[in-house]
Amino acid sequence: MNTPEDFPVLSHRENGVVTLTLNRPHRFNVLSEEMLEALEQALEHLNEDKTLRCLVIAAEGRAFCAGHDLKQMRETPEKTYYQTLFSRCSALMQSIVAFPVPVIARVQGIATAAGCQLVASCDLAVAARSARFAVSGINAGLFCATPGVALSRNVGRKAAAEMLFTGEFIDAEQARDWGLVNRVAEDEALDAAVDELTASICAKSNVAVRAGKAVLHRQLAMPLSEAYDYACGIMADNMMAEDAAEGIDAFIEKRPPEWRHR
Amino acid sequence: MNTPEDFPVLSHRENGVVTLTLNRPHRFNVLSEEMLEALEQALEHLNEDKTLRCLVIAAEGRAFCAGHDLKQMRETPEKTYYQTLFSRCSALMQSIVAFPVPVIARVQGIATAAGCQLVASCDLAVAARSARFAVSGINAGLFCATPGVALSRNVGRKAAAEMLFTGEFIDAEQARDWGLVNRVAEDEALDAAVDELTASICAKSNVAVRAGKAVLHRQLAMPLSEAYDYACGIMADNMMAEDAAEGIDAFIEKRPPEWRHR
Amino acid sequence: MNTPEDFPVLSHRENGVVTLTLNRPHRFNVLSEEMLEALEQALEHLNEDKTLRCLVIAAEGRAFCAGHDLKQMRETPEKTYYQTLFSRCSALMQSIVAFPVPVIARVQGIATAAGCQLVASCDLAVAARSARFAVSGINAGLFCATPGVALSRNVGRKAAAEMLFTGEFIDAEQARDWGLVNRVAEDEALDAAVDELTASICAKSNVAVRAGKAVLHRQLAMPLSEAYDYACGIMADNMMAEDAAEGIDAFIEKRPPEWRHR
Repeated sequence: MNTPEDFPVLSHRENGVVTLTLNRPHRFNVLSEEMLEALEQALEHLNEDKTLRCLVIAAEGRAFCAGHDLKQMRETPEKTYYQTLFSRCSALMQSIVAFPVPVIARVQGIATAAGCQLVASCDLAVAARSARFAVSGINAGLFCATPGVALSRNVGRKAAAEMLFTGEFIDAEQARDWGLVNRVAEDEALDAAVDELTASICAKSNVAVRAGKAVLHRQLAMPLSEAYDYACGIMADNMMAEDAAEGIDAFIEKRPPEWRHR
Repeated sequence: MNTPEDFPVLSHRENGVVTLTLNRPHRFNVLSEEMLEALEQALEHLNEDKTLRCLVIAAEGRAFCAGHDLKQMRETPEKTYYQTLFSRCSALMQSIVAFPVPVIARVQGIATAAGCQLVASCDLAVAARSARFAVSGINAGLFCATPGVALSRNVGRKAAAEMLFTGEFIDAEQARDWGLVNRVAEDEALDAAVDELTASICAKSNVAVRAGKAVLHRQLAMPLSEAYDYACGIMADNMMAEDAAEGIDAFIEKRPPEWRHR
Repeated sequence: MNTPEDFPVLSHRENGVVTLTLNRPHRFNVLSEEMLEALEQALEHLNEDKTLRCLVIAAEGRAFCAGHDLKQMRETPEKTYYQTLFSRCSALMQSIVAFPVPVIARVQGIATAAGCQLVASCDLAVAARSARFAVSGINAGLFCATPGVALSRNVGRKAAAEMLFTGEFIDAEQARDWGLVNRVAEDEALDAAVDELTASICAKSNVAVRAGKAVLHRQLAMPLSEAYDYACGIMADNMMAEDAAEGIDAFIEKRPPEWRHR
């Protein structure tokens, strides 16, 4: 599972938590074709891993991720190339939303354009206090249309418009207040803050966590009654799992539960 | 209308305001089959009451509502039973959203799982400063899928994910800042804060208030142009009511309106 | 382009920015038929103007806009008249959402009912610290159904319900915290704050800004995968524009870009 040190994405597993680390720090971890492929492969591989409890997306260096590889993009100035590239990146972002367990962004430095989209696409995000966020394509003549899809599903309409049309940075606390990240940690306590979230999720039943990930985003796209119908089915299935029986009995008996599927 | 003291839901009417009080304090007002039935009947009964101005959902004791009755649920470990139970509870929550007048949650103590969903399903909510909120099913191996439907339509996507996957409590001020409740009152001033809201609604034209409840949630589920078409129809109807003529004339003449439908 | 001083809407152009100023201060700039027609004509005219960079909607006097002209409405108490009037106003609001460049509300004084809707319908809004906002139709027996369509797409569900059912004012900071406006400026610095936003947008490529306006609201109404497909197409088109090539080359070469379409 662990990857050679020169790979674009490092993979580290500890108990049920896999951390994927973007590993092109000198290039601000841009989503080059190489990086996209490495992320696609890592996610596809982990998608089938039933022992996985949650996934962390982290990054090496002074940037979390600076978005697309603009240099590489300029090398092939063809519309079909761009269409394919953006579709590929969009599919990657959607695979995070559809990923079977919660995905947590661990954000230091800058997260710009598709890098900001990556944060928005994760279920949860923890930012270092010095982290900054922007959808800054507009500064280079390219509106962040696809990053805006994810961003505008995290923050309010006017906040999204401001970020997208001005391209300006917001700091970590603003990102938290607007709903783009969950928690802000002192820079030196960033790992501890991420560990707190992963530990909380790992203490839960994997069956229940996976049921949750399957329902949360999907029901939000549905009308209310359809959303309830879908959620009722997920919850009835969840109730039939051994872990729900154990968890509820433990709750009633005021003892800690012992999950079957750790 | 008023109910015997040992009923699971007490009903109290004062002027146009009915307060339904969950009355199983020693069981943390769980949504047992008995409680669900009592709430269903109360809502169905009030649904036809044209003199009703607004509805308050309150609770006795140290908990607002602790969600489903887990003990009772464990007695019939059958998927069809759970499916029916969750559908029934979801229908109840939707009947609050579709209720003809505004519904206000008066929240003290804890509101967990379907109890938190009940707060999220109300139009307005006032919380005591010591109140706390969680969708904590995940701690018992059961993801709060249906509570998540209501919660994620009140708070941002990342806040919802955090509450649902960690199961942790948030306090009343956090709930207000995230959009789950409108106002936080000192514990001893909770009734006064609820009264302020009900008095504000009772001072309005019942016709207009009912028009509002009919349009608010429904238009939110529609695309923009369809939402406007629907809202235009509601508003044109509202303009033809005597109360609108009186209200507008009073506004123009700078005098208090005298509603026909008090 | 500039309009006679007694017109209901004044138009002022400076570089690529047009400011439309509601000019019936003694009538609190209500959306009378005269005002609606002037706004419709101004927007229709500007809709075709390819040199326009952004639009500001401002107002003369102590009110930004007090909503519909209630006096005029009472003169024709016919449902078809009201239906036509509300549809007309709704079409105006939607033409702001669909307008080809960003629209910024410059808000002083009160913005009530359809005046608050006007703020909510703009992409961006800057408020004077003393500005106040309400959807106060409910006080006159007329629920703000159509203003609620725009408002509830800016602020959370419970905040929208509170404003719509109570009719109470919120101040500028509350409006910012809830997502109805982007920025609050001291009263005497309101123009400077608006200028800062327009200058930021004017410094961008017009092609990219227009691509952004075309995608932002439209994708929000779509399911996630459809939203991404649409955004990918917009972004691939944007990449083929000369401005994107210039902007990205300038970014790579660490020099300021020179836009073709200023």
